[in-house]
Amino acid sequence: MNAPAVVGQPVQAVDTPALVIDLDAMNRNIARMAAFAQQRGLRLRPHAKTHKSAWIAAQQVAAGAVGVCVQKTSEAEALAAAGVADIFITNEVIDVAKLARLAALAQRCTLAVAVDSTLGIERLAAAVKQAGCALGVFVEIDVGHGRCGAAPAQAGMLARLVESAGLHFAGLQAYHGRAQHVRGPTERADVIAQAAEGVRQALAALARVGVACPLVTGAGTGSFALEAASGLWGELQAGSYVFMDRDYADNTPLAQAPAFEHALFVKSQVISQADDRAVVDAGHKSHAIDSGLPIVWGRSDLEFFNGGDEHGVLRRRNAAAVLPGLGHTVWLVPGHCDPTVNLHDSLVGVRGGLDHGIVERLIKVDARGCLR
Amino acid sequence: MNAPAVVGQPVQAVDTPALVIDLDAMNRNIARMAAFAQQRGLRLRPHAKTHKSAWIAAQQVAAGAVGVCVQKTSEAEALAAAGVADIFITNEVIDVAKLARLAALAQRCTLAVAVDSTLGIERLAAAVKQAGCALGVFVEIDVGHGRCGAAPAQAGMLARLVESAGLHFAGLQAYHGRAQHVRGPTERADVIAQAAEGVRQALAALARVGVACPLVTGAGTGSFALEAASGLWGELQAGSYVFMDRDYADNTPLAQAPAFEHALFVKSQVISQADDRAVVDAGHKSHAIDSGLPIVWGRSDLEFFNGGDEHGVLRRRNAAAVLPGLGHTVWLVPGHCDPTVNLHDSLVGVRGGLDHGIVERLIKVDARGCLR
Repeated sequence: MNAPAVVGQPVQAVDTPALVIDLDAMNRNIARMAAFAQQRGLRLRPHAKTHKSAWIAAQQVAAGAVGVCVQKTSEAEALAAAGVADIFITNEVIDVAKLARLAALAQRCTLAVAVDSTLGIERLAAAVKQAGCALGVFVEIDVGHGRCGAAPAQAGMLARLVESAGLHFAGLQAYHGRAQHVRGPTERADVIAQAAEGVRQALAALARVGVACPLVTGAGTGSFALEAASGLWGELQAGSYVFMDRDYADNTPLAQAPAFEHALFVKSQVISQADDRAVVDAGHKSHAIDSGLPIVWGRSDLEFFNGGDEHGVLRRRNAAAVLPGLGHTVWLVPGHCDPTVNLHDSLVGVRGGLDHGIVERLIKVDARGCLR
Repeated sequence: MNAPAVVGQPVQAVDTPALVIDLDAMNRNIARMAAFAQQRGLRLRPHAKTHKSAWIAAQQVAAGAVGVCVQKTSEAEALAAAGVADIFITNEVIDVAKLARLAALAQRCTLAVAVDSTLGIERLAAAVKQAGCALGVFVEIDVGHGRCGAAPAQAGMLARLVESAGLHFAGLQAYHGRAQHVRGPTERADVIAQAAEGVRQALAALARVGVACPLVTGAGTGSFALEAASGLWGELQAGSYVFMDRDYADNTPLAQAPAFEHALFVKSQVISQADDRAVVDAGHKSHAIDSGLPIVWGRSDLEFFNGGDEHGVLRRRNAAAVLPGLGHTVWLVPGHCDPTVNLHDSLVGVRGGLDHGIVERLIKVDARGCLR
């Protein structure tokens, strides 16, 4: 009942609103990021919080990725059930019942998780011992984001605790989320330089207690070229590059990073009109607005206004702009890809472009709604 | 895999983040709104875009509601499939394929839809003729919101067209969405007075062409007492009253309206902490932030900051505030109920309060993700 398209249909027949993937653009994005990592001898572990899809994860792994990241235990469960073999939960798990699920999952796929507290390590160790499983444990350090993660100076103490609890210390999780959308390349480089200083402090703390650091992992689509150039990070976690969004496109790009294309679009349709506006059937139930409103693709003369859960209101930016008529298709580029994908059960994979393409595949969003 | 609770569990055992309904509070809200409408001799057709659940719709109908409203064809399909018998799609449908689905649905439940254009009426009439079905057609007028709806003066022309196309003119759809969160009661009354003037203009336009108006329908949780007092509206569409949210609670209430209680909560848990913050496992993938951030229930000394898709960051509002510790439960009241519900597959219905209650029911969000 809920599928917006049938394989083989022309893109014109896709029901609205629907989340449409330009597969050609997505494939180019995957190849460019894979080449970047390969050329620098870095591991690539894309964050699957962007696409939440085992099929897209498989495309990334086929291009050289070592596995994927997720944020939640239930995301890891959903992707593992759909065939993803190597998953890192880049987040803390404290709940005892959830840790038991995590330990059970470690018997079905290669799994790692982040910790940033003594309590977290103790509870994880108990769950792992109970299940008799093995998994990788990354100590997360706060490199300036100000969310999760221990102070870098605590990394040695926590890594020792991981090891003394019988767990496998896999390295440092060092991700600066807020750095990703610092617009200017120089300013972004400054923020990642500070993050690198945090990593150095953590490495020094590990050295002081005699614990070797197998890997530093982190980085996002806005900053990965900086982490790559630092010589500190050995694994990149960028995820949004696969689809891109309005917020990432608003960045001034780093000279060192490959260019990525918009591959994620909301197909919408005009359902009401007046002299001063056209109203489309896509509101913030179709696209996340935490990072701002969508832009109208190919129509810089139209501005999108929030019309609530189910509507978008298009207005002219200049007197010469022609509003689209009733029933006409309007393509939107969402503000933020990850939570937009979470609003859809499936993605419509189109080959051959948005104007004349054909629906090649319905991509299940396997981890849609996996909040826990 | 994805259910956050089991019936019979204590509320303490509910996995996080989860959307928890205080069933006692919800029942009181349903009863208060039903009594309000009954005492004034008005029909109540709650908007199911709030709860998207056939079970909650059934509770409202059992308390006297004539049916429910929805915004999308696929919502109507999902709720009808789950047993809802009388549904009004308070929105325009232009797409020919979708109109065929709508006409097919009219053979399975009592159905109505809104129109605001000549093209919309022509296409709807063709679909209805093709299917050989019957449904109610409301002409939507723009009473000041500035989204969908024809100018009130056009109501006569459109209603005549509905009738001449062989469709059943059921009345006027007149809803002012932006009025709902005008904070001051006097200012809100002014906005609804203007909306009432629009309704009077539309009724005059109908009278001029000799078309009787069976019903004027509209109103929301912020304004319904004003529409009720106007003598113009015969049916109230308020929906959010069943759950309430932070945004509605920020209104100064109307003296004429019953008081409603918060019945919708996100149960979250602290997964990371630092001296200046506690980080919970609920971000804007667990609660919609289009109408602002959640508040921390019962902890006015804590402020919630957006931590992204999966995290919320709690900080002290004053030096004496004690941050909750690792693993502790934190209850959040979301900014906006409707799109928050859309993020969850099921709601955890708890009886006996948030501290010591028992999970009585998992409520399926039947129309979750029904965007089309």
